[in-house]
Amino acid sequence: MKNIILASKSIDRSKLFQNSKIIFSTLITEVDEDKYKLVISHPHELVKQLAKAKAVAAKKNLEFTKTDSIIVAGDTIIELNGKIIGKATDENNAYEILKQLSNNTHNLITGIAVTETFNPKMIVDYESTSVKFTKLSDKNIWAYIKSGEWKGRAGAYSIGERASLFIELIKGSPSNVVGLPMNLLYKILKKEFNLDLLEI
Amino acid sequence: MKNIILASKSIDRSKLFQNSKIIFSTLITEVDEDKYKLVISHPHELVKQLAKAKAVAAKKNLEFTKTDSIIVAGDTIIELNGKIIGKATDENNAYEILKQLSNNTHNLITGIAVTETFNPKMIVDYESTSVKFTKLSDKNIWAYIKSGEWKGRAGAYSIGERASLFIELIKGSPSNVVGLPMNLLYKILKKEFNLDLLEI
Repeated sequence: MKNIILASKSIDRSKLFQNSKIIFSTLITEVDEDKYKLVISHPHELVKQLAKAKAVAAKKNLEFTKTDSIIVAGDTIIELNGKIIGKATDENNAYEILKQLSNNTHNLITGIAVTETFNPKMIVDYESTSVKFTKLSDKNIWAYIKSGEWKGRAGAYSIGERASLFIELIKGSPSNVVGLPMNLLYKILKKEFNLDLLEI
Repeated sequence: MKNIILASKSIDRSKLFQNSKIIFSTLITEVDEDKYKLVISHPHELVKQLAKAKAVAAKKNLEFTKTDSIIVAGDTIIELNGKIIGKATDENNAYEILKQLSNNTHNLITGIAVTETFNPKMIVDYESTSVKFTKLSDKNIWAYIKSGEWKGRAGAYSIGERASLFIELIKGSPSNVVGLPMNLLYKILKKEFNLDLLEI
């Protein structure tokens, strides 16, 4: 099987790959996200461009390797009433975000970019999943923040941990809410890169 | 905090509790599920009665304890075109089930029962989540069966593992698809048993 490289430092994305029994390596790339956020205001376009930038950076890092690898990158934001929300900067910011999400429905949007080390093909797509939160009291929010789950997560929550207690319903891909739309990745790899992850 | 007892042998339910940072113990009860399946044909009623039977059995086991505990029990089935599907009995049965679910939408239904050791109150409810599978080839299905994930799972799949590759979308509670609707449990405990899991 071809090498698969996950160009992401997200523990949640790595866990999705591990749980799906995919053999992979991770490669952390540095992309100046703020630069993109300043010029792209459309949520879908932003995550697509950020995922692509991460894949391009990973490809550049791997230029001198001799191994043929598939590179997968992703970027997640949430969108509430047209406003883009990323990761919280500190506990107070996490409070502000969660307060807005409480008793409300937002969209969790992930951009995904897939390419290969020695192939100019670059597939970029996105997936959006709507997520409804139950009503949270200030005490609930602060207790949640103290758990530390907000750190490094778009929207300051983690569906795979305590947030399962306050997520009422989702519509769309559940793995997308974890961090990467695995069915979309499956379809891209099958259609565009001739790799059926469910045959192995 | 009150003791919480999860009356279930499901590893998926235990993981949901662990990931939600709930302190709990498990107690495995034996309920003759086939007896219920013979007389109850309505999916919602069946899972509710089975969850209740498990909670009642756990309560009976704990009759002589002096510790005040909350008991949580659950039972999951899937429903496809009005037909109830439980756990697969063997690999061939798992194949038959997955073949039917392929390229189709089913409902995953969990009954939940909550009571206390020294409290006659017994709350029984259910949650239903619709799940859409991508199209699977026979080769895909057999490769999946060989991973062993079908064992012990209603519908012969596990959303937290390789099945994330072929689950296109869900509508409803994501934790329900894992094994227990955690937001419904949260609401029942808060409203009926004066316990706010998000305050601790």
